[in-house]
Amino acid sequence: MEIEFEKQFMDLQKKVTKLEKGTKDQLTMVVFSGDLDKIIAAMIISVGAAAMDTKVKLFFTFWATAALRDKKKSAQGKSFMGKMFGMMLPKGTTKLKLSNMHMMGMGSSMIKGIMKKNNVPSLEEMFKTAGELGIEINVCEMSMNLMGMKKEEFIDYPHMNICGVATFLADANESKVQLFI
Amino acid sequence: MEIEFEKQFMDLQKKVTKLEKGTKDQLTMVVFSGDLDKIIAAMIISVGAAAMDTKVKLFFTFWATAALRDKKKSAQGKSFMGKMFGMMLPKGTTKLKLSNMHMMGMGSSMIKGIMKKNNVPSLEEMFKTAGELGIEINVCEMSMNLMGMKKEEFIDYPHMNICGVATFLADANESKVQLFI
Amino acid sequence: MEIEFEKQFMDLQKKVTKLEKGTKDQLTMVVFSGDLDKIIAAMIISVGAAAMDTKVKLFFTFWATAALRDKKKSAQGKSFMGKMFGMMLPKGTTKLKLSNMHMMGMGSSMIKGIMKKNNVPSLEEMFKTAGELGIEINVCEMSMNLMGMKKEEFIDYPHMNICGVATFLADANESKVQLFI
Repeated sequence: MEIEFEKQFMDLQKKVTKLEKGTKDQLTMVVFSGDLDKIIAAMIISVGAAAMDTKVKLFFTFWATAALRDKKKSAQGKSFMGKMFGMMLPKGTTKLKLSNMHMMGMGSSMIKGIMKKNNVPSLEEMFKTAGELGIEINVCEMSMNLMGMKKEEFIDYPHMNICGVATFLADANESKVQLFI
Repeated sequence: MEIEFEKQFMDLQKKVTKLEKGTKDQLTMVVFSGDLDKIIAAMIISVGAAAMDTKVKLFFTFWATAALRDKKKSAQGKSFMGKMFGMMLPKGTTKLKLSNMHMMGMGSSMIKGIMKKNNVPSLEEMFKTAGELGIEINVCEMSMNLMGMKKEEFIDYPHMNICGVATFLADANESKVQLFI
Repeated sequence: MEIEFEKQFMDLQKKVTKLEKGTKDQLTMVVFSGDLDKIIAAMIISVGAAAMDTKVKLFFTFWATAALRDKKKSAQGKSFMGKMFGMMLPKGTTKLKLSNMHMMGMGSSMIKGIMKKNNVPSLEEMFKTAGELGIEINVCEMSMNLMGMKKEEFIDYPHMNICGVATFLADANESKVQLFI
């Protein structure tokens, strides 16, 4: 083969490798909202994707971090603000509220009852399945600092890491699908 | 040509075909919110994309499904919960409310008046255009079950399907752009 | 080389060039919400990405446009509706409210105090950094028309353009990551 062509061919191979790196079969999601319905949506999409062999990386930030709190756990040595946030924010998935302000009449418990009746797994069961399927939960360090949350008050989850926005961006950059919920 | 090279070349062709499959000129969107302003945003983006020859696939779920109800239609044989939801949720696009809680003073009708004055098409017109442009509306089966909704109470739309989260994920995986609204 | 093969090779080169065009190291984001916490999240992600040499293009639309207002500026010749919106919507970043309706007790000022204490830059500082890093802010022309906003009342920002949804769609199509906040 001609040398010039060989160069062109290797160049093309490099480009394709770079393209492949940027389009992994991966779903990267920012979970920002702490509303029950949005966390349910995030987990249904995540578990569905993982079941289809897509790598799933979640980035819990702001209000969503409260959904990771374990109602049976508590953290020591919190600041005054940390204690305030601790009281004001829901303690884990069972305490989340609905986003839909126009439906005041319908409580979170009603939705949970309907989900159960329709054989939709509960949020707690979905987190368990998520762990079994290898879904990564990255928790935003800045949000934890702002709200005075500590890792020791979070649920036991096999693939949980504390990290910053740079981790989310690197994950998003290499994944086919990105969502902000 | 050398056999080794021929193998490498075919390998590269396969990789490129796979990459092309994963980056179709397609927009896949989860429409989760049932707020008037967010549905307007979703439809403006969708119609704009379809007008630019991008394939658009919408996945209506949770509160957004209520926007698909036809105010002139009703469904028979609903459960008690289905009837409750039917009463509580807005019946179609003309009954949607704004998301912005800080603007209590400004009703949905005011926004609609301003849109009309500025020659922005109404939501009903946008759905009509969407149908003409071939935009697919996929409705989340689980949401319909949870809220006791039936297809017969939805608007007449030429490309409407009932499906699950797996359909959304497959569509999202092959599309260039994905959004969650 | 054989002519047939040469054709195939050139065909592959074209395909790869097209794929590269569609997956630029770029983040395109719709900023729809006018809530303080969501704008903070949008700016943290944007500044983080730009710091990692990712090109960032923001599309401010609907309620988010109010965050771009400069509290020291005002526009002349507004219509009655424009004046109404002007009064009702927050005048710039310092007047934004939180999205979280369950935390009525905790005001925007509290969040800002905590951010300061934790050395998180203020929104005003983030916009300044964004400008220095070359982040583009595109403002939705339709939203401006609907709300009677004029460019002269916006903050001084080095890379601000007024444009339509087609610009967002073109930007989103060529970018690796797209988000709707």
